[in-house]
Amino acid sequence: MLQDTYIPPTVTVDGVIFQMLDEKLTVLLIKRARDPFMGAWALPGGYNAAGETTHEALNRILTVKAGVSVRQLGVVEQLYTFDSVARDPRGHAVSITYMGLGKGVELNGHDAQSPQFFSVAHLPKLAYDHNKIIVYAHERLKAKLAYTNVAFALLPHEFTLTQLQSVYEAILGTPLDKRNFRKRLLSLDILQETTELSKEGAHRPARLYTFRDRELVTLVRSFD
Amino acid sequence: MLQDTYIPPTVTVDGVIFQMLDEKLTVLLIKRARDPFMGAWALPGGYNAAGETTHEALNRILTVKAGVSVRQLGVVEQLYTFDSVARDPRGHAVSITYMGLGKGVELNGHDAQSPQFFSVAHLPKLAYDHNKIIVYAHERLKAKLAYTNVAFALLPHEFTLTQLQSVYEAILGTPLDKRNFRKRLLSLDILQETTELSKEGAHRPARLYTFRDRELVTLVRSFD
Repeated sequence: MLQDTYIPPTVTVDGVIFQMLDEKLTVLLIKRARDPFMGAWALPGGYNAAGETTHEALNRILTVKAGVSVRQLGVVEQLYTFDSVARDPRGHAVSITYMGLGKGVELNGHDAQSPQFFSVAHLPKLAYDHNKIIVYAHERLKAKLAYTNVAFALLPHEFTLTQLQSVYEAILGTPLDKRNFRKRLLSLDILQETTELSKEGAHRPARLYTFRDRELVTLVRSFD
Repeated sequence: MLQDTYIPPTVTVDGVIFQMLDEKLTVLLIKRARDPFMGAWALPGGYNAAGETTHEALNRILTVKAGVSVRQLGVVEQLYTFDSVARDPRGHAVSITYMGLGKGVELNGHDAQSPQFFSVAHLPKLAYDHNKIIVYAHERLKAKLAYTNVAFALLPHEFTLTQLQSVYEAILGTPLDKRNFRKRLLSLDILQETTELSKEGAHRPARLYTFRDRELVTLVRSFD
């Protein structure tokens, strides 16, 4: 019977943690301290042991490797489970991956694995299939811009529409028409105008906005 | 070091296979032949061994337990990985789950596990957390009706708008206004009118439609 001889794959958890830095979408990477891929950059990840949920494993790994707690992130969601037999040279390992979105995340690696945020547009070749996992996460994030308020997790509490547009442009990798962007964004009804004006910038002060909700809201119109 | 003492959770794959029967959304269940939960109904599932992808495991399990090949299904996608420590009384087992959509799926269990399609609206209490997994899959399917052509996988090649509406109503669990439904559906631009008329029904013959695409297409408007 299968149960008697059963050897499970190794189970790992990897986190794709995005934040905006200098108007660029960036992702958290650590430098691998041992083989395989010693010296290569990789997503923070590690083993998921029996008795620990993947979310607990994610939190433990981010804390140890980068000094980041999942509680600092505005959005944390399971992304996909990558299961290619060849993805780890040591043997079959399935990776249950998460996407996390933060802002002002400060790094504090106890493990001296040089945690750093890298521009998603200019990544080096990473360990394992981690480039592919980041592409997948980036696509998920792009898609969510169209039907959720996900950008709240990447922006300060109050922001101008120009700042908001620059976040959308950085994620989508393309410039957007200002007038169409504003029209589309306001039609989603996820923003709230404040009575405040921005004190930054050389031009006349711009209106500050906030997101109506500080948790993920899905806007897809349903059939019911 | 963690690696030296590492015990991974057990890894299983479970499939939520939906099809329409008698205008009801139904899901494939098998009767458990041994403990835990002997005699209870459950999703078809089983161990995922090292060296086998989850998709391969799904195909093997569906074939052995229900005589169904994933190639018979119009849509097969990874759903979510359920990882609660307490979900299996034998010990921590993470389940990588899939949703599959089929039509006219015939069952042929070699394993005599009584595979049957059950109405999703009237499920018994299932083994493990399988009721919860089905609720999750059902929500995913509902959401996909609003922004994909997913219903193609549940309908015959040609169908009337009345048939289509009945599939939407069965999945959403609510009656829909005929005029609004047609307007909304035609605005999604996923259907193609044929030159054929339905030969069934007591009323005057109705126009037959097909789906423009026979694979999953996502219709969310993006920002770029």
